[in-house]
Amino acid sequence: MAYDGSDYSGFQRQANAPTVQETLEDALAQVTQAPTSIVAAGRTDAGVHAAGQVIAFDTDWFRRKSSLRRGYGPSDLERALNAVLPEDVAVRQVREAGERFHPRYDAKKRRYRYYIYNSPQRWPLIRRYSLHVDRPLNVEAMEEAAKSLVGEHDFATFGQPPQGEVTVRRVFAATWGTDSFPSFAPGGGWFSFDVEANAFLYHMVRSVVGTLLQVGLGKMDVRAFRAALKARDRAQAGPTAPPHGLCLMTVTY
Amino acid sequence: MAYDGSDYSGFQRQANAPTVQETLEDALAQVTQAPTSIVAAGRTDAGVHAAGQVIAFDTDWFRRKSSLRRGYGPSDLERALNAVLPEDVAVRQVREAGERFHPRYDAKKRRYRYYIYNSPQRWPLIRRYSLHVDRPLNVEAMEEAAKSLVGEHDFATFGQPPQGEVTVRRVFAATWGTDSFPSFAPGGGWFSFDVEANAFLYHMVRSVVGTLLQVGLGKMDVRAFRAALKARDRAQAGPTAPPHGLCLMTVTY
Repeated sequence: MAYDGSDYSGFQRQANAPTVQETLEDALAQVTQAPTSIVAAGRTDAGVHAAGQVIAFDTDWFRRKSSLRRGYGPSDLERALNAVLPEDVAVRQVREAGERFHPRYDAKKRRYRYYIYNSPQRWPLIRRYSLHVDRPLNVEAMEEAAKSLVGEHDFATFGQPPQGEVTVRRVFAATWGTDSFPSFAPGGGWFSFDVEANAFLYHMVRSVVGTLLQVGLGKMDVRAFRAALKARDRAQAGPTAPPHGLCLMTVTY
Repeated sequence: MAYDGSDYSGFQRQANAPTVQETLEDALAQVTQAPTSIVAAGRTDAGVHAAGQVIAFDTDWFRRKSSLRRGYGPSDLERALNAVLPEDVAVRQVREAGERFHPRYDAKKRRYRYYIYNSPQRWPLIRRYSLHVDRPLNVEAMEEAAKSLVGEHDFATFGQPPQGEVTVRRVFAATWGTDSFPSFAPGGGWFSFDVEANAFLYHMVRSVVGTLLQVGLGKMDVRAFRAALKARDRAQAGPTAPPHGLCLMTVTY
């Protein structure tokens, strides 16, 4: 799935706030004419976007008489869902999964991207998908600091575990790129941080980005960043970066 | 100026609808403490965006005692305006202009860009800045048809003159590109149409794009497109493309 998280209070269903889960479950109920619960690979925070979220659900839609008669397959469900979903949520592909498939427990890697627009001026177009930083950033220092994240570490400095107590995660890659983001923005100033791990703690990517920004702004040096990582102390992290720059890119199984 | 036109009823001030003009004039009044009227190079339609709109206004702000005492210049006005403007409108640069400068009459060229996402699937991120076309487009045919727009022509087929009767305009360039637009969208499928002219008729770019789309969809051939241009008949144009794919890129003086 892909979604613009701007107008949602996160993925996970809540009593009195619009969520991606509720939106998709409502669409599934409407199409399949049966209440349907979904499970997601990543429960993205309020305002966080997704380009490659993975969800799973059980349905007997394909085995119904009317579906069998019409020869309905996964692509028909995909089209039907996209027809009823609001424009800020889309299903990219519907596929049949094994009965024991669990999008969260079976995921081997998740990749997130965080977009930053570094310029003295705001840029109104694409402001919903990137953090504007008006002071100059030392991206080389941010890149250097990011290297220390790679490997298996206790990331307690950067977040809380979603369940249990274990705060150890394995980061496969953490790099800054200067990917030219929106071609109608002024040249230069666009940076993106790509991070891939077996799993993430709550708020981990945003906390890492917020702390790397302290390095980029010269408020923390690379050595201090490494010490903060080793400290396993939430108080050592910089301010958590806002959600709207973050996007769940891919989940690997 | 740059703005996201999604939430505005166009540039030009209206009695009961939010406009970019009103928003900027309010900001100017707040900063300069004097009612200030602006004139724009292009009065963009409701929902159309801008990356390089040019506006002009008269102000005595720089000559006020308090400004003189503080040595305020154009960049101070720029910062003050950006501080009070909403996040979907930004001033890119404030410069002093000659007393006789008129952003519309003095403009030699305007360039617009229209973004299209051509894919069977919707893409929720950046949907505000591009038109989604789900059937395959023949971009080569669209490129071929667009060539006939270049030069001085009577464009009555594609729009009405904003004032007077003359519908002749000079188009300097009209090309389709495959500019990779948002890097978090799936590879491929992104097209943009760049068109530069001395001036445009009302709805001209959107009408041209809508008609080129008929060519891309195989509903009109290149020959018929050329005949439609020559016909000087509004009824020969395809449906006007929606505003949200369009962006005023640059104005040249």
